[in-house]
Amino acid sequence: MSDSYTVTKTTRVKRLAKRGAYDHETVHAILDEATLCHVSVVVEGRPRVLPTLVWRIGNRLYIHGARKNGLFQAMRDGAEAAVAVTLMDGWVLARSAFHHSVNYRSVMAVGHFTEVTSPDEQMASYQAMMDKIHPGRWDQVRWPSEIELKQTAIMAMELVEVSAKVRTGPPVDDAEDYALPVWAGVVPLSLERGQPIDDPTTPPAAI
Amino acid sequence: MSDSYTVTKTTRVKRLAKRGAYDHETVHAILDEATLCHVSVVVEGRPRVLPTLVWRIGNRLYIHGARKNGLFQAMRDGAEAAVAVTLMDGWVLARSAFHHSVNYRSVMAVGHFTEVTSPDEQMASYQAMMDKIHPGRWDQVRWPSEIELKQTAIMAMELVEVSAKVRTGPPVDDAEDYALPVWAGVVPLSLERGQPIDDPTTPPAAI
Repeated sequence: MSDSYTVTKTTRVKRLAKRGAYDHETVHAILDEATLCHVSVVVEGRPRVLPTLVWRIGNRLYIHGARKNGLFQAMRDGAEAAVAVTLMDGWVLARSAFHHSVNYRSVMAVGHFTEVTSPDEQMASYQAMMDKIHPGRWDQVRWPSEIELKQTAIMAMELVEVSAKVRTGPPVDDAEDYALPVWAGVVPLSLERGQPIDDPTTPPAAI
Repeated sequence: MSDSYTVTKTTRVKRLAKRGAYDHETVHAILDEATLCHVSVVVEGRPRVLPTLVWRIGNRLYIHGARKNGLFQAMRDGAEAAVAVTLMDGWVLARSAFHHSVNYRSVMAVGHFTEVTSPDEQMASYQAMMDKIHPGRWDQVRWPSEIELKQTAIMAMELVEVSAKVRTGPPVDDAEDYALPVWAGVVPLSLERGQPIDDPTTPPAAI
């Protein structure tokens, strides 16, 4: 067993190739930290892009949404999907406008989603989604009913053609610009959870 | 003059239509707060998606990148683009797994990018990008040289077919679930700037 995804013509990082990574550890850590992905599908010849939650069990990537969503319908008819997951880690402030950049960790996966129809996998994927939103949540909430499972489609993609791309560290300026009297460095960015806000509808239990 | 974008068949929010918004104020505020967009283009019949910085001047949306980027080349050949901008504002924790949700503000724009070739617009768009990364930055840094302007392509799209979609507020559970002894509410999410990290390469000036 390899610990890396196989590099293909589609997934090989072409631009700034040294930022590319294909090992499971890097790819999975990004997918697990990310809340959102953007799924791109060609629908009736036109580009479509859907922002939606993303989560993972093993080498399978999951998304969910309305059963009649146009992208999901195209996927059921065999349309290929490109999935982008992007974490912003910081603004990279250089001495020159041109060399400003972003520290990021991103994943690109290409493949085909199929609808999850097995009740066991549906429940397991709901559990993984719940525990990603809030660890331990699955044991607290009311689980999905049969009717609810039918209302929402869960789609899964086997991770096969997938790559990561990562930028870290300080800016890289032209040699002659290092003497310029301008601050340079990194302003970190992170998606932070704030203080929970009780649902005002009824007196809630403790979180 | 209208203060809203015209709703078209392409941009009308179909699912949960009450979350849709088309007024300039809502759309522009989301675009201005966002750092990232995801651009989707059909390249040789396949879906492609590119995460990249996004910024705005008036009703024009800007992205930039390597001149030879495959999506940019397809755009120059007339390919349509779909641009998604998504801000995560909070996890919405319901009493049932099914009614968990996300508070978000998103924009979808569909149209054609053209390359910015006017030096004046190139410089103005660099300035807008810099000042978005860090307010006032343009007045501090070395401006792009003619060679640098040629190395990177700036692409602009006129905002015409564009819509916003926004979810706010507490979860909405089924009536019979409100009595369940489980916490419900919103866990806010926000992209926060951390303490700046000096470039260790040389003693930097003050930020």
